[in-house]
Amino acid sequence: MHKFAKRAEEAKASEIREILKVTERPEIISFAGGLPAPELFPIEEMKEICKTILSEDGKRALQYSTTEGHKPLRMQLIQRMARMGIDTTMENVIISSGSQQGLDLTGKVFIDEGDTIICESPTYLAAINAFKAYSAKFVEVKMDEQRMDMVELEKALKNNKNTKIIYTIPDFQNPTGRTMSIERRKRLIELANEYDVIVIEDNPYGEVRFRGEMLPPLKSFDTEDRVVFMSTTSKIFSPGLRIAWICGPTEIIQKYTLLKQGTDLHTNTFSQMQVSKFIEMYDLESHIDKIKKVYRNRCDLMIKAIKNEFPDGIKYTYPEGGLFIWVELPDHINSKDLLEQCLKNNVAFVPGSSFFPNGGNENTLRLNYSNMPEDRIEEGIIRIAEVLKEVL
Amino acid sequence: MHKFAKRAEEAKASEIREILKVTERPEIISFAGGLPAPELFPIEEMKEICKTILSEDGKRALQYSTTEGHKPLRMQLIQRMARMGIDTTMENVIISSGSQQGLDLTGKVFIDEGDTIICESPTYLAAINAFKAYSAKFVEVKMDEQRMDMVELEKALKNNKNTKIIYTIPDFQNPTGRTMSIERRKRLIELANEYDVIVIEDNPYGEVRFRGEMLPPLKSFDTEDRVVFMSTTSKIFSPGLRIAWICGPTEIIQKYTLLKQGTDLHTNTFSQMQVSKFIEMYDLESHIDKIKKVYRNRCDLMIKAIKNEFPDGIKYTYPEGGLFIWVELPDHINSKDLLEQCLKNNVAFVPGSSFFPNGGNENTLRLNYSNMPEDRIEEGIIRIAEVLKEVL
Repeated sequence: MHKFAKRAEEAKASEIREILKVTERPEIISFAGGLPAPELFPIEEMKEICKTILSEDGKRALQYSTTEGHKPLRMQLIQRMARMGIDTTMENVIISSGSQQGLDLTGKVFIDEGDTIICESPTYLAAINAFKAYSAKFVEVKMDEQRMDMVELEKALKNNKNTKIIYTIPDFQNPTGRTMSIERRKRLIELANEYDVIVIEDNPYGEVRFRGEMLPPLKSFDTEDRVVFMSTTSKIFSPGLRIAWICGPTEIIQKYTLLKQGTDLHTNTFSQMQVSKFIEMYDLESHIDKIKKVYRNRCDLMIKAIKNEFPDGIKYTYPEGGLFIWVELPDHINSKDLLEQCLKNNVAFVPGSSFFPNGGNENTLRLNYSNMPEDRIEEGIIRIAEVLKEVL
Repeated sequence: MHKFAKRAEEAKASEIREILKVTERPEIISFAGGLPAPELFPIEEMKEICKTILSEDGKRALQYSTTEGHKPLRMQLIQRMARMGIDTTMENVIISSGSQQGLDLTGKVFIDEGDTIICESPTYLAAINAFKAYSAKFVEVKMDEQRMDMVELEKALKNNKNTKIIYTIPDFQNPTGRTMSIERRKRLIELANEYDVIVIEDNPYGEVRFRGEMLPPLKSFDTEDRVVFMSTTSKIFSPGLRIAWICGPTEIIQKYTLLKQGTDLHTNTFSQMQVSKFIEMYDLESHIDKIKKVYRNRCDLMIKAIKNEFPDGIKYTYPEGGLFIWVELPDHINSKDLLEQCLKNNVAFVPGSSFFPNGGNENTLRLNYSNMPEDRIEEGIIRIAEVLKEVL
């Protein structure tokens, strides 16, 4: 037996990724992953992009580059953020190797053993894993349709003096699909100011809003330089390229940059140029419009099928964007047992308890609607309903 | 002031990367970085590769993929390692986002605060930074032409009971360019077995041998499943793509995989396929032969210029491969002061003291010969010699 570090001894395999391996079997209808629809990837455009990059700037594309990232891409992202209400500059933006690296670096920059992170209950599974590697403690704050309960948040801040971070995904949260109201966004920033904590605003889905009005990001209310905004091109372009970004106060971004140096030197040069070139040569907004149209349709289909097929006594969310629906079953149902039965029926989802850093809530589950074609969405919900009718 | 984690408070900017920013000025002849020669990048082939990947398998190339990495690439790397004398299987290999990520994950998997890493004196700067983020302590073992002194290594192991890792770059070490003899390789493994420690064999340059005979990697002598072998495609193909790999015992690779999940989910899918496709469609060996020929020529030119131009009393190494020459100046010369003078003379190198985890050795410096064309190598050495003659 080797002597691993404590964090490695304690690390557990992500249930999602283990389930994803099973769901690679083609007969399985999978609502488990968080995968974009591959049929929407701009493959023909990508051929043009690659040719152009290699012809114009091939030596640069294949060479080492700076830790901060490709300047033209950072300029383009600054312009995108301006439209969301975030006014920022080059020295406040670095490129990361996927949003997951943004989460890992957040732990590296801020978390000493035993520091507290306040998050919603439930919250993003892979953020929990990233922060746990730095021995963070989690305080969960319950939520409703408008998200984090602000009275509970204040209590949590008062009772946990070693809180470093409030972590949240305000738009179309993973796993619930819910969006934080504008009043709560403002209140969250007030409380962060009062208790002097950092806010991590994780925003991978914000640009995939297919209903209702865009809400301003937390970062746009940040008057005291304490919000770190993270976003990604994974859901609006291609997740395989692992291109995301982090935007924050200068002093904080310098620390992310320093620690990123030791983590992977820099993000893939060629892929940073791929994203930048796509934005330059094509119309990203109309590409995102296509994605939204398909996802809205799939979301509506799934909700209609749930309404028609699921037995009574089951609650579910109604997302305005993003990739996920959250389901609460009656208390006595364990969704892990349910999944076992469902896999026999060739349909998969993710049991909800993994999204609670301190466990529990076995009666919940997450459904993804972005990755399956329309006919399989209806069929998959029928299959889950068959199992539910047996156990309820 | 924000409350950063201890590791972030302590992190210092890498001198190399700061120097590299200065050396972007075109008038500077830079021997500072560790950059491959960009004129050797296979740009035309890359155009074909990108087109083929996107035509054959575009959806997969742009989608999320597994943490372990692209299977065809892992198979190809297993075959490459077999030719080096390493007999291994799929479950022992994962793809990492550059070798730097392999180093970061090594810290994450093995190092608790205060654990000791034994390394050579000097050793790779960015490995020091990666391990320091996990609060490792370093014990340096002095070296000679055949590398790590084995009597000193045994003493270090005896005197430091909390040693977790011996870290070494056996072939054409960064920064010295020196290679470990076969007798010392065997002895190092014997000592690792006796003292029950992990060996990290970092091998980014091994395939760029332009003189002498290939020596078997430490991993090929590993009878007790304690060697983790890391290599990269950065020096034989393209560093911008950030494709490297880690090969080790099953139980250890499982931990690397688990912690990589939380670090960046997985390495860029498209770029893994780019490397794999290049190996499939073209002749990587003859591409490496081209690289070796150019680097040998540049190395020889630099050594000849040093011999002709440098004043007496300066020692330097004679590499059989890789990218670097190591220079020892008389004790009273501080290479950081020398660099300041040299930058005024439009020539750059890296001061050596950063390669010593516990500091000191200000009279040393590292020269890179892979990145500058032949005429600039001679001119650059003449410029350094001019400054040396003033201060000596």
